[in-house]
Amino acid sequence: MLDSTQRPSVVVDTSRSPHSRLKSLPLTDVRLLDGLWEPRRRINRKVTLPSQYDFLESTGRLDNFRRASGKLDAPFQGIYFNDSDVYKWLEAASWELAAGSDPELERMVDVAISEVEDAQQPDGYLNTYFMLDKASERWTNLRDMHELYCAGHLIQAAVAHHRATGNELLLDVARRLADHICQVFGLEKSDKKEGVGGHEEIEMALVELYRDTGEYRYLEQARYFLDARGRGLIGGGEYHQDHKLFQGQDEAVGHAVRAVYLYAGAADAYAETGDEEVLRALERLWDNVTTRRMYVSGGIGSRYDEESFGRDFELPSARAYAESCAAIGSVMWNWRMLMLDGDARYADLMEHTLYNAVLPGLSLDGQNYFYQNPLTDDGEHRRQPWFGCACCPPNIARLLVSLPGYFHGVSDESVWVHLYAEGEAEIHLNEKRVIKVRQRTSYPWDGNVEVEVNGEGEFALMLRIPSWCETGAGIEVNGEPFDGSVSPGSYAEVRRAWRPGDTVRVTLPMPVRCVESHPYVTENAGRVALMRGPLLYCVEQADNPALNLRDLVLTAGEDFLDHFRPDLLGGVSVLEGHARTEAPDEEWDGRLYRTVQAHADVQQDDATRITAVPYYAWANREPGAMQVWLRSR
Amino acid sequence: MLDSTQRPSVVVDTSRSPHSRLKSLPLTDVRLLDGLWEPRRRINRKVTLPSQYDFLESTGRLDNFRRASGKLDAPFQGIYFNDSDVYKWLEAASWELAAGSDPELERMVDVAISEVEDAQQPDGYLNTYFMLDKASERWTNLRDMHELYCAGHLIQAAVAHHRATGNELLLDVARRLADHICQVFGLEKSDKKEGVGGHEEIEMALVELYRDTGEYRYLEQARYFLDARGRGLIGGGEYHQDHKLFQGQDEAVGHAVRAVYLYAGAADAYAETGDEEVLRALERLWDNVTTRRMYVSGGIGSRYDEESFGRDFELPSARAYAESCAAIGSVMWNWRMLMLDGDARYADLMEHTLYNAVLPGLSLDGQNYFYQNPLTDDGEHRRQPWFGCACCPPNIARLLVSLPGYFHGVSDESVWVHLYAEGEAEIHLNEKRVIKVRQRTSYPWDGNVEVEVNGEGEFALMLRIPSWCETGAGIEVNGEPFDGSVSPGSYAEVRRAWRPGDTVRVTLPMPVRCVESHPYVTENAGRVALMRGPLLYCVEQADNPALNLRDLVLTAGEDFLDHFRPDLLGGVSVLEGHARTEAPDEEWDGRLYRTVQAHADVQQDDATRITAVPYYAWANREPGAMQVWLRSR
Repeated sequence: MLDSTQRPSVVVDTSRSPHSRLKSLPLTDVRLLDGLWEPRRRINRKVTLPSQYDFLESTGRLDNFRRASGKLDAPFQGIYFNDSDVYKWLEAASWELAAGSDPELERMVDVAISEVEDAQQPDGYLNTYFMLDKASERWTNLRDMHELYCAGHLIQAAVAHHRATGNELLLDVARRLADHICQVFGLEKSDKKEGVGGHEEIEMALVELYRDTGEYRYLEQARYFLDARGRGLIGGGEYHQDHKLFQGQDEAVGHAVRAVYLYAGAADAYAETGDEEVLRALERLWDNVTTRRMYVSGGIGSRYDEESFGRDFELPSARAYAESCAAIGSVMWNWRMLMLDGDARYADLMEHTLYNAVLPGLSLDGQNYFYQNPLTDDGEHRRQPWFGCACCPPNIARLLVSLPGYFHGVSDESVWVHLYAEGEAEIHLNEKRVIKVRQRTSYPWDGNVEVEVNGEGEFALMLRIPSWCETGAGIEVNGEPFDGSVSPGSYAEVRRAWRPGDTVRVTLPMPVRCVESHPYVTENAGRVALMRGPLLYCVEQADNPALNLRDLVLTAGEDFLDHFRPDLLGGVSVLEGHARTEAPDEEWDGRLYRTVQAHADVQQDDATRITAVPYYAWANREPGAMQVWLRSR
Repeated sequence: MLDSTQRPSVVVDTSRSPHSRLKSLPLTDVRLLDGLWEPRRRINRKVTLPSQYDFLESTGRLDNFRRASGKLDAPFQGIYFNDSDVYKWLEAASWELAAGSDPELERMVDVAISEVEDAQQPDGYLNTYFMLDKASERWTNLRDMHELYCAGHLIQAAVAHHRATGNELLLDVARRLADHICQVFGLEKSDKKEGVGGHEEIEMALVELYRDTGEYRYLEQARYFLDARGRGLIGGGEYHQDHKLFQGQDEAVGHAVRAVYLYAGAADAYAETGDEEVLRALERLWDNVTTRRMYVSGGIGSRYDEESFGRDFELPSARAYAESCAAIGSVMWNWRMLMLDGDARYADLMEHTLYNAVLPGLSLDGQNYFYQNPLTDDGEHRRQPWFGCACCPPNIARLLVSLPGYFHGVSDESVWVHLYAEGEAEIHLNEKRVIKVRQRTSYPWDGNVEVEVNGEGEFALMLRIPSWCETGAGIEVNGEPFDGSVSPGSYAEVRRAWRPGDTVRVTLPMPVRCVESHPYVTENAGRVALMRGPLLYCVEQADNPALNLRDLVLTAGEDFLDHFRPDLLGGVSVLEGHARTEAPDEEWDGRLYRTVQAHADVQQDDATRITAVPYYAWANREPGAMQVWLRSR
């Protein structure tokens, strides 16, 4: 075990990973001061985490632990993988404790940890579903019963609690369970039981446990589980990504959350072990997702059926599944990919997904969640306070808590700025120098970012030039034009001998963009989506009460302009412009199909004013229609 | 019980139904002699029915009956509703026996009936899943376990066997089970158990059993089950159409096959009981399906998720579920609606669904089946020889066997021609006169139909003028223009004093039509489908090997012409014409979304020759892409 001074509150710790170029910063070294994320994070802390804890109690999720430890004589409550919700909440709350003292939250965390600890079996086994009457069924159905998945979440929670507080209580529980797993599962020739989990998660968790403890066997075990997939141990189905050895996979298939959790775990394994075939598979999968199987929001997993990826270009809007957890998993995966080599495409997608696929999952009041995220809706789809299968709520919470960790990175002689928002960070470069970076900006509403650098000596400041900023990006250093490359979709490398107070001005123009889909996305043919900066927009009935959104047609050349409205939806820039409405002609009454007319009159009205709001903020007012993809002429 | 001379082989016998305008003809009174259906029916008789019987044996479906009767000591095999496959096969085979002697088929039928009979319990109960160790679970889960569904199929098989052969063996089994059901289920105040089946079928079956036996209690029991729906007895879910009282239903929701079986049963109940609220609900549901929730093929049920109807206009092409059984149920429902009042719209849809949604379900060789029927495919979706859940194969078989019964109808002083095909029928008008009707035509490849009428005295010949025949339909009687109304989507009423050999010539011009979808079907925006006569067409890779079907663009004004190819796909008219190909430009390489360009160059090639084949015949050659909806300029 590393000594406590070496346990910073880093969510993914690649500081000793031989195949990772970047390291991340401890959560405690970054402070967000912006008007978008930080209010959300405050609500997450003050409202979301306590209200989720109440659900853990009221739905019997904590009672399941009390039952397992014999404190309570009652039936198991809820779904067999409900332990994972407790662990994900514990992970979120633990990272929160890293940020500072909160006695009420500490009390909840302590209660939860003590219930978890008391439920552990003498041999290290821990899963409250497979206790008492079901104890004989342990590890008998790895495909369906999520035991390794729950174990993985316990380990992640334990690492978080340990790094955040230095306390080893939960970590010891996790180590006992991990040791038990290491004893039970492995290659047959080692006299162990062969097996692999139907819902991935354990892979990431064991790598992180290795990073936190230095115990190599946890990394070996993670690698075993990665390599055991695709050998038919759990039936060989695409649903569980068990259809091929990981190194041979090239299409994102099956359950989307499981898939991206696997990819994130594989990226962790690559960072430590450097298997080039794993990296190549990850790159192929990334290409497949991003060029064939991803919503314009960054959401992934098209199908309600099996919560799965669809085929190439299968991206229905109203029936988009696009589970919030899959978007979160995508951020986790892209973050790990980014750290491997510092390729800006991963940071681009991470930013895009955070704003447009993760953030929509949570209501402005922090108490209601989307599980599915459609791109058009008639007003029926609303966020819910909780779910029987409640994977998304604590997942969103733990992501928001850990968000500051995603803003920066550090490598040999370089300080990286991945994301932009008002805030500050303290960056330890090569364990020799401390660099303070202060961002002044109203990003994402405006693309001007002033980065004040306080640190001395030569190093590079790596500034991401987002791929959405297709033209006009610029950098000035202390008022002088920067003479290096400033290219969208890459990091501008500002290398110099720095002096305290040096200021770099990044200019990222944010015109409103009309975005179209690949022609093979049939549902979006003839349609565009409005974007500005990193944000995807939508039209909502609430802003356009007199219009049938389905009849809107944007006319070419129409210019939309942004307008910041501090009063609206927590403060957003709306987009305002004009569109026509074209209603179906009367010949359509009572018909679904008809022979094409020579040319039927279209009922075309005069252009009308329409307002679009950021997609992340939809469904926070009275129920009504919403549409991302708009017809276009 | 009616005496045997009054038991004609009529599939749906409305001859004594007070609220039905039309009666159908016995299967034995109609002979198809055409080149499309009759070869299919011959294969059904010679190949499909024997091969399905082999599956009933090899998959343990018949052994389940042997197990239940104590002849076999073995576990139950397959799915809990597998009895229904035996019954549906028995229904198909029984109707086949009506057509004439076939010793081999008779032997199979006799074996199956004797196994069924031997498995029945002394109290009349019969379901091989709920026997022996599971006997105590009878009727405990009506929502999920399909007991009433299986019972319904047994009753339908028994009525078929009785009407086809005059033999009462299976009918007696069915009556004992029906009597048991009548004793068990009913209003609570009658000291019975309240209940309703999660998968509808019993409703139609009990009405038909009433029609066959004259026992009014079976009709009452059917009516009880119709009225019990929507009272929350099985949870109140849309999936089971239990969300509302039937009389209040106005949107087709939930599992599509269940829905249309319910609607067919409700139409049967209306025919006998005349409840106007039931009729109004049926009409509302029909409007909802046909103007909002139906594929251009006539297929219904958009979603893989729950095999269910989608929302209005939710009609994805590649992910169309459009289960073959749902199309068959739609034919059954429309047939019953047609008989109520002779409204041609029901016959129109029945014809359309038979050609374009039922017929695709079966391969040309009669041995492979589609469960789902996509409207575009990349070549992966292929017909299968059997399914674990094998509802579709015997359903297609029983429909093909009973098909001749759908061609004609009879009412007071009128002889009805619903469908066109080379063939002949003997029609008993008012039990006084026998009218022989002979159709000479190569329909559906050509719209000229000569109807020779042999019968004397005054009556009306009702000739359907299909709604697809939008212009130019005409009728001549003995070479003279008919002076009555000849209007698409209605029956032309040719009333006269007939003399032997009178000939009516119906001319139904069949230009190729480009059909478009309602603008709210987003996936079909800017696309057309090719139709000719009653047939929907598609383009297949096999006929257009050098083309990427997704890149095809039909240009306005391009004229497609039909060309009969006797050698192709059992003999079909193909459509030949020209289209351009427009491939995505190179800027799309590696992208899924992009900012709209000022105007990007489209790679537009010269017009190329393309060939379309009837949709029903797709996937009968080497695997390859298929597309119904084509881009259009």
